[in-house]
Amino acid sequence: MNGASMNGAQALVSTLTGLGVDICFANPGTSEMHFLAALDNPAMKSVLCLFEGVATGAADGWYRMTDRPASTLLHLGPGLANGLANIHNARRASSGMVNVVGEHSTKHLQYDAPLTSDIEGLARPLSHWVRRVDSARSIAWDATAAVQAASSHPGQIATLILPGDASWQDAGEPLPVPPVVRTRRTPDLARVEHIAQVLKSGEPALLILANKATRGRALDLAGSVAAATGVRLASQFFTARCERGAGRVPLERIPYSVAPALAYLKDFKHIITVETTEPVAFFSYPDQPSLLKGPDAAVHVLAERDEDSELALTMLLDALGARHAPRMQPRIETACPTGALGPISIAHALAHAIPENAIIVDESLTTGRETMGYTMGARPHDMINNMGGSIGYSPPVATGAALACPDRRVFCMTGDGSAMYTIQSLWTQARESLGITTIIFANNSYAILKAEYANMRAGTPGERALAMIELDRPRIDWQAMAKSMGVPSCAVDTVEDLTQAMLRSAREAGPYLIEVRL
Amino acid sequence: MNGASMNGAQALVSTLTGLGVDICFANPGTSEMHFLAALDNPAMKSVLCLFEGVATGAADGWYRMTDRPASTLLHLGPGLANGLANIHNARRASSGMVNVVGEHSTKHLQYDAPLTSDIEGLARPLSHWVRRVDSARSIAWDATAAVQAASSHPGQIATLILPGDASWQDAGEPLPVPPVVRTRRTPDLARVEHIAQVLKSGEPALLILANKATRGRALDLAGSVAAATGVRLASQFFTARCERGAGRVPLERIPYSVAPALAYLKDFKHIITVETTEPVAFFSYPDQPSLLKGPDAAVHVLAERDEDSELALTMLLDALGARHAPRMQPRIETACPTGALGPISIAHALAHAIPENAIIVDESLTTGRETMGYTMGARPHDMINNMGGSIGYSPPVATGAALACPDRRVFCMTGDGSAMYTIQSLWTQARESLGITTIIFANNSYAILKAEYANMRAGTPGERALAMIELDRPRIDWQAMAKSMGVPSCAVDTVEDLTQAMLRSAREAGPYLIEVRL
Repeated sequence: MNGASMNGAQALVSTLTGLGVDICFANPGTSEMHFLAALDNPAMKSVLCLFEGVATGAADGWYRMTDRPASTLLHLGPGLANGLANIHNARRASSGMVNVVGEHSTKHLQYDAPLTSDIEGLARPLSHWVRRVDSARSIAWDATAAVQAASSHPGQIATLILPGDASWQDAGEPLPVPPVVRTRRTPDLARVEHIAQVLKSGEPALLILANKATRGRALDLAGSVAAATGVRLASQFFTARCERGAGRVPLERIPYSVAPALAYLKDFKHIITVETTEPVAFFSYPDQPSLLKGPDAAVHVLAERDEDSELALTMLLDALGARHAPRMQPRIETACPTGALGPISIAHALAHAIPENAIIVDESLTTGRETMGYTMGARPHDMINNMGGSIGYSPPVATGAALACPDRRVFCMTGDGSAMYTIQSLWTQARESLGITTIIFANNSYAILKAEYANMRAGTPGERALAMIELDRPRIDWQAMAKSMGVPSCAVDTVEDLTQAMLRSAREAGPYLIEVRL
Repeated sequence: MNGASMNGAQALVSTLTGLGVDICFANPGTSEMHFLAALDNPAMKSVLCLFEGVATGAADGWYRMTDRPASTLLHLGPGLANGLANIHNARRASSGMVNVVGEHSTKHLQYDAPLTSDIEGLARPLSHWVRRVDSARSIAWDATAAVQAASSHPGQIATLILPGDASWQDAGEPLPVPPVVRTRRTPDLARVEHIAQVLKSGEPALLILANKATRGRALDLAGSVAAATGVRLASQFFTARCERGAGRVPLERIPYSVAPALAYLKDFKHIITVETTEPVAFFSYPDQPSLLKGPDAAVHVLAERDEDSELALTMLLDALGARHAPRMQPRIETACPTGALGPISIAHALAHAIPENAIIVDESLTTGRETMGYTMGARPHDMINNMGGSIGYSPPVATGAALACPDRRVFCMTGDGSAMYTIQSLWTQARESLGITTIIFANNSYAILKAEYANMRAGTPGERALAMIELDRPRIDWQAMAKSMGVPSCAVDTVEDLTQAMLRSAREAGPYLIEVRL
């Protein structure tokens, strides 16, 4: 491409792809027509999404599997707003992304046309980096700064506001742009040596791993620390991506609910954190604590969120003078389960059925939340959780993960209530023929809220209140829903049928939906 | 109810209903369990929505038909974020609403739990009024201030952030709260008298009506002004709610596209505005103007947005010394159309089929945008447009309008691309058995963007760019979509079948969906 002939939108797309941002989850509008034209650049893969929350969630899923930011294309302030809930989830998962938000051309803003809004104001609460493009000539610099921010450790949300005139004007001669630098801060040696002394003391200690430390070499190193010192290894209840199953270093999981989390943590005298903080309750409840550790426990930071945890764990092993091999999770063959559908039998079905290298995107809430331990000895796989708590993250994240890993089957496990927030994802999955099995746990209610009602001591729900957490009038017909967007499906009433459907779905080239009738 | 025993949530609901805010479009979560319990108050109608954009859009529809704010219940920052696009549309329509946004309890915020976000920051760009409840004891005052703001003229977006502890703590003795005052500013007499002189000059003039002036007595008064002076009457292309059809004062419609709008406006020497501004292009295009009036036209403000336009028009008639009866639109019988489906035949079908007092919520874009003139002589009806330009407004607004007017049939006319943003509305429509006919114009593309691509001079779209505005892989199966959420449906290929289906649907008690295969 002759750089001198580029307009701003072409220069933007060219800069993004040159820096490795080579996918764009897009929901375009009138003000983005030049950007759309620029997407004809064959170095950029464009994926159409029918709702912006699908685009931003897919960018999150892409980052989780590649550690590289994707871009999104959103239509002015309201388009950004539709993407914000999954931007919140991505931010909490430390996923980097570059959001390109179309905007009126600069001279048009003064007239307060209908779609005008304070885009910076909408972007800032959930973005780490926000910039408005001033001119087509500086757009390559702006795009580079956005990619630099998104590629930080931890990943950041970068939002670039693109006025129409900056898209269509001549970008001039291409300027050399600085390279994107990927660094992680080095942990402090004295702090690491102190933690080595703590571990040598033999007092009960828990090492909590998060973000990039729950996989790859960092996870193996943590396993070596545990083998050398007896420290127990855990993740928070929710993890951005965890490599688990047979042949991986197993992590315990701190329980979700306050009472079991308190019971789990109460005897640890030391909590050692890696890319995370001490455990905190997800919600606050009347007369329940927010901090979950035992009353005498000390918290030690082995690696801050922006530090290199692999290096921190290596330094810790050096300080310990230890070279123990980690203890790996053995394979546990789980027989094809029989009997009634329930959280445990469903976990057994999953353990039996998931193929090697599957990616599980979990939003199963009441159905799967407490029983994932049963899949510890399954074939090796990746597990992805919702880090931000905004419901409807899993179908979009599964979409992005499947695009990132076309050779791996994705299992998206979701409650029926959750799935409805971003159900438009199914259409993109069909369009791109993505290898995703969506498993809908259809209990026809916001079941989690029935428990939370009691946890909150809100009394016994009256008829009107109860009606607000029941989804049974009407029941959602999930097979019709799947069909409407071109996704084949089945419904199952038994765990045998669920297991067989999962096995069968893993041989599909494209998406498949299983309604689990609870 | 014994006021002294109320908790904060009960005091909030009791205050809202006491001030006439007696419907709540809700998508609750854990932090809102006490508010949910308080919704057992029989004075409050609670409507469950499966996505927050449905809740805020329904509140908009409710306001448009009642001129009273509804409340919404949204789950923390991300729940608010999901509702923002339709809050933007409501704000641009001058619809008041009271958003109650659940929040962690105050002491929990310091721990930065996963769902924590800057709710004020997310609320401010699109809210006129934002407040965080400080204590259960002041909640009645906070709710009153919120309702006061929402009930202003023009209506305002009021967002009340409700921490968990403020919900569950004792609200104490009920305090007397000040009454909600509904006022409209009085127009300046000198300004009105000047406009009377302008109209007496005989120079070509256009009176543009908006918001509350496109219906009721204000519309009749404008008709009298036109009859007395020959001034032409128009609305902007988009109107919050317009009473039109046989027996109403007819308004011309300023065209949407820039070239025909310039042509329409070029000969007017005077533009007189009522609750609106001079006409502005919706988008900006290369080398096209943003302001649409003729080069020599003067703009005169008869009523500012916050002024009483009925009073302004009365004062104008007094200044003119005129008492002319308005000229009303005669009934035009439109025969049942035959032949191919197209914008004009579809408009004829609508003109033939809509029953008396129907409410048309229009988001038909390319299919219906240019042809609504053909329905001028239909039975009297209300027409509602999207004022903010954020797509996916119509199924939620139809939902709220139907709840507001249970005796009137609502026709929701929407493009297929538009409908997909907030398709979860169908479920609430089925649940509440709402009299809504959703008409999906299924052209399997973002057809509007094909035209805009050319308008933007973005050249001829390449294969990749074109693929991003085609929705035909896969085609959405709209009958399956309707079935999935319990809505009966049919598909039509001819205008005869469309007309018959519309007539039939108007006799349904509940919702119905018609897929128009274009």
